[in-house]
Amino acid sequence: MSSRILVLGASAAGLRAAARAKRRDPRLEITVLDRREVISLGACGLPFYVGGDIENLQSLRSTPWGALRDPEFFQSAKALDVRVRWEATAIDREARRVHCRHLDSGEEDVLEWDQLVIATGARPRRLTGLPADHPRLSTFTTAEEARRWREALQRGQLESLAIVGAGLIGVELAEAFSALWGCEVTLIEALDRVLGRQLDPEMAALVEAHLQEQEVRVLTSRRCLSFEEREEGLEIGIDGGTDGDSVAAQHAICAIGFEPEVDLARQAGLAIGEAGGIVVDETLRTSDPAIFAAGDCVEVRHAVAGRGVHLPLGSLANRQGRVVGDNLSGLESCFGAVVGSSAVKVFELNVATAGLSEEACRRLGIACDCVHGTFSDRAHYHPEDENLHLKLVFAADASDAGGGRLLGLQAIGRGDAVKRVDVFGNLLRRGGCVEDLLDLEFCYAPPYAPPLDPLYALGCAALNQVRDGVRSVAPSAELVGRELLDVRTEAEVEAAPLEGDARAIPLEQLRARLEEVPRDRETLVCCAKGPRSAEASRILMQDGRQGVRYLGGGVSMRVSRRVQPGEDEE
Amino acid sequence: MSSRILVLGASAAGLRAAARAKRRDPRLEITVLDRREVISLGACGLPFYVGGDIENLQSLRSTPWGALRDPEFFQSAKALDVRVRWEATAIDREARRVHCRHLDSGEEDVLEWDQLVIATGARPRRLTGLPADHPRLSTFTTAEEARRWREALQRGQLESLAIVGAGLIGVELAEAFSALWGCEVTLIEALDRVLGRQLDPEMAALVEAHLQEQEVRVLTSRRCLSFEEREEGLEIGIDGGTDGDSVAAQHAICAIGFEPEVDLARQAGLAIGEAGGIVVDETLRTSDPAIFAAGDCVEVRHAVAGRGVHLPLGSLANRQGRVVGDNLSGLESCFGAVVGSSAVKVFELNVATAGLSEEACRRLGIACDCVHGTFSDRAHYHPEDENLHLKLVFAADASDAGGGRLLGLQAIGRGDAVKRVDVFGNLLRRGGCVEDLLDLEFCYAPPYAPPLDPLYALGCAALNQVRDGVRSVAPSAELVGRELLDVRTEAEVEAAPLEGDARAIPLEQLRARLEEVPRDRETLVCCAKGPRSAEASRILMQDGRQGVRYLGGGVSMRVSRRVQPGEDEE
Repeated sequence: MSSRILVLGASAAGLRAAARAKRRDPRLEITVLDRREVISLGACGLPFYVGGDIENLQSLRSTPWGALRDPEFFQSAKALDVRVRWEATAIDREARRVHCRHLDSGEEDVLEWDQLVIATGARPRRLTGLPADHPRLSTFTTAEEARRWREALQRGQLESLAIVGAGLIGVELAEAFSALWGCEVTLIEALDRVLGRQLDPEMAALVEAHLQEQEVRVLTSRRCLSFEEREEGLEIGIDGGTDGDSVAAQHAICAIGFEPEVDLARQAGLAIGEAGGIVVDETLRTSDPAIFAAGDCVEVRHAVAGRGVHLPLGSLANRQGRVVGDNLSGLESCFGAVVGSSAVKVFELNVATAGLSEEACRRLGIACDCVHGTFSDRAHYHPEDENLHLKLVFAADASDAGGGRLLGLQAIGRGDAVKRVDVFGNLLRRGGCVEDLLDLEFCYAPPYAPPLDPLYALGCAALNQVRDGVRSVAPSAELVGRELLDVRTEAEVEAAPLEGDARAIPLEQLRARLEEVPRDRETLVCCAKGPRSAEASRILMQDGRQGVRYLGGGVSMRVSRRVQPGEDEE
Repeated sequence: MSSRILVLGASAAGLRAAARAKRRDPRLEITVLDRREVISLGACGLPFYVGGDIENLQSLRSTPWGALRDPEFFQSAKALDVRVRWEATAIDREARRVHCRHLDSGEEDVLEWDQLVIATGARPRRLTGLPADHPRLSTFTTAEEARRWREALQRGQLESLAIVGAGLIGVELAEAFSALWGCEVTLIEALDRVLGRQLDPEMAALVEAHLQEQEVRVLTSRRCLSFEEREEGLEIGIDGGTDGDSVAAQHAICAIGFEPEVDLARQAGLAIGEAGGIVVDETLRTSDPAIFAAGDCVEVRHAVAGRGVHLPLGSLANRQGRVVGDNLSGLESCFGAVVGSSAVKVFELNVATAGLSEEACRRLGIACDCVHGTFSDRAHYHPEDENLHLKLVFAADASDAGGGRLLGLQAIGRGDAVKRVDVFGNLLRRGGCVEDLLDLEFCYAPPYAPPLDPLYALGCAALNQVRDGVRSVAPSAELVGRELLDVRTEAEVEAAPLEGDARAIPLEQLRARLEEVPRDRETLVCCAKGPRSAEASRILMQDGRQGVRYLGGGVSMRVSRRVQPGEDEE
């Protein structure tokens, strides 16, 4: 019988696997090793502790009923033997042993196992060529670091910070340090945009504009070249750009992502995948069937990309933990392909995505089409209605099977982006097509949603584009120099005129004033959110005009207006 | 060519069908008749206008950009001929004509059609045997009625109101009249509970308790027998119950539901279904293929019940409109089966459901099992975290295929009930099983969700029940007289002690104190939300005990504590 189980790593995946296995089969002897002192930390909450939303740092390692999740808790409540400050130094697959060492006492031990679980997590990437342990340059991963930042902010000792990396953690930290405490934050990103793994450029532009409105300085397409200490601060040398070649800040946080912690697995000869994570099958067994792996150290299969990817998300790690626990205790269980549904709150914007961006499709050689739209989050007359900007990516499919297979969704707005991505993600995971968006069922009541959900309306726009040739352009399209038709009302045009030289004919008057629209030029139709200009496009096309397009997502999805210097805010 | 289209009814389904068809094929000649003056009204918004959330009644019949959706608008923007105050009096299928009459002038006309659309909606049910047009007894359907109620409330002229019927509209109106204006509302319901079509009794009890906390008087299992005018008010005679046989109020609103408006269809010999609506196929054609029907006058196919049901929901009517518009204009399009996802805000509670309740399953002869759970809506340490109470209904399936087919979900709480029902409903529509809940993917970030979504955790509880025999009882279970084991912490027990005589052993101490739990009695384990008592159940079962159960949803899902008179609120 496989009665001795050893788990390496006491975070979500490892502890859940251990607890689940023990619950199902109390005869199992389970030991969990972790090199850290603080285990089972809800690290996703650290930015919210720094930002002041959460007062009690201990709550991030406590149960909902207030019990501290320390080794004693796991012993008494879960009957698990959790040993902290123990580092596994080598896996001996032949002998089924793990060599380990206590980090404080230096004591060494050899533990035998029948089944092994590697849940070693991920470690923050570091900037190559720059100091690894500069006192003013750190990562953001531990509770201790968070406590120090929070103290410095509360004492008013931190007035400026540079955050290197504008991914999920980077933008979350930008809010945490600046919103309540007023610390001046500069985000430095090597890619041409923020949230580059999740968002295409025109969608990222919405987030950047909002960050700037909130007085976060955003520098994209900039690489950090040097860190030099100056009196009470740092001077960070950056390349590219026109607004200077250095950033001054008291401290810098490097948040350029995580890489799977696979040293032990690699030394043991387990298969490592292209994305750098441990390769596992559907049961989360590694290339050695006696060894499982789960959490941020593994690669998961991406349902759309059809390949292994590294997605260090707490939601996936927890789910994997249960699957491993089942399999350890004899109940065959599987972890399927995922689409990477994820979300981040950026000040007042909700940002959520699933599947592939247009850029990712291009990189993977997947032919795709896109449609943008701006929608009411609720009944448009409801006082809490907010805009939601969506971008749908779907397969450009000559056979038009179902309007094309779904590939990805990007949702941004003050409205509820997460709900739409949660519904979409699960359709995407099952291989849905554009037509399926029109069959989705949503709860409708004015405080929650409009009668036709944004996802439905977006699906309609995609079908109209594919089947009826009512084609959109991205909201970031250049307007100047094009033949523009603005079909908004006079009041709307006056309140927010288009850049470029637009002909204004409200939709309601278009049929009667068709002759005012020149026939010899290709018209780009604009409105506030998209639907009216799509409707106007049809009218023009049915009047025999060629090359008509509309501005997807409408004027409300264009960023340029918001960030042009010298303009008054609306 | 079928070029002349006549649409009966200018609400969501009819107007959307007409506009869509005309957009796709401008050669179609489309006429829309409606007996009302005010068309295209967002009637779902009326309670929010009365309640003071919405200031401008016109916004309910305006586009998002402020254009009034009157016949002139539909003519200019949509090229539709919409005729108001015209009532269709007969459909002549043979000659393809509709006879109609102007309600003000008495003028009569005969309109020819090649394709006809019946979108006549639904009419409010009336109490049988009671006056149809009593000045103090009305329905709540028109903008004019809403305007009068709002005026009376604003002027302080309405101090008490009886609402007969505690369905979706009834509970929405209870809030609308009382929350801002302080009008004393009594809800009178013939069923034994509020929201009886959506909720099982123990779930409805949560809503009733909240209504009572908000000072709405709720009388269930009461039928109205008489309405008598008393000075400045009504005396409503009711049967049953111990707290009096009459209710005094200035006015009464009858909100006992809607019945499909099918007189014309029936006279024309079209098939009417068991649920009283017009029978349509997947293309929304009636039993006469030249005649379509859509919206609140039709029956839709319920994906779980496998039969026709009448679901007058604006979301479905709008979607059906597009399907009809496609088919009218030559693009074959289908409307599939639905699960009736719906939601209602009841003061601070969000209430959402999809599929069948346990009671509905019993009525339909579907063998089912249930599990309840209370969950954190977000990361439990996030300051905006709120509870969400869920009930899952799934097939009791001896073969345990996938843990049993999903049948329905009821979600209630201050947390986000709608998101979970939206995700669940679309899984249910596709015939999902309990295991599928564990494969769902959710965006995770502390402000939006916990790492493991409530739906995932609920699925785990169901699987544990089905496969491992870790069985729950409903949160409404009688506790007094049972052998109770309370595994909460001392502080929790002190703050909210259980009714009945409970043995208190915190979960963390249970393994060491097993002998304190008697072996000769069947133990019911309780905790705050469910998970700890489920875990404790396992420990007891593995210790060889029989008949162990836990309290599903935990103490926080029990209503009795909140409504016992004389108790202080927590």
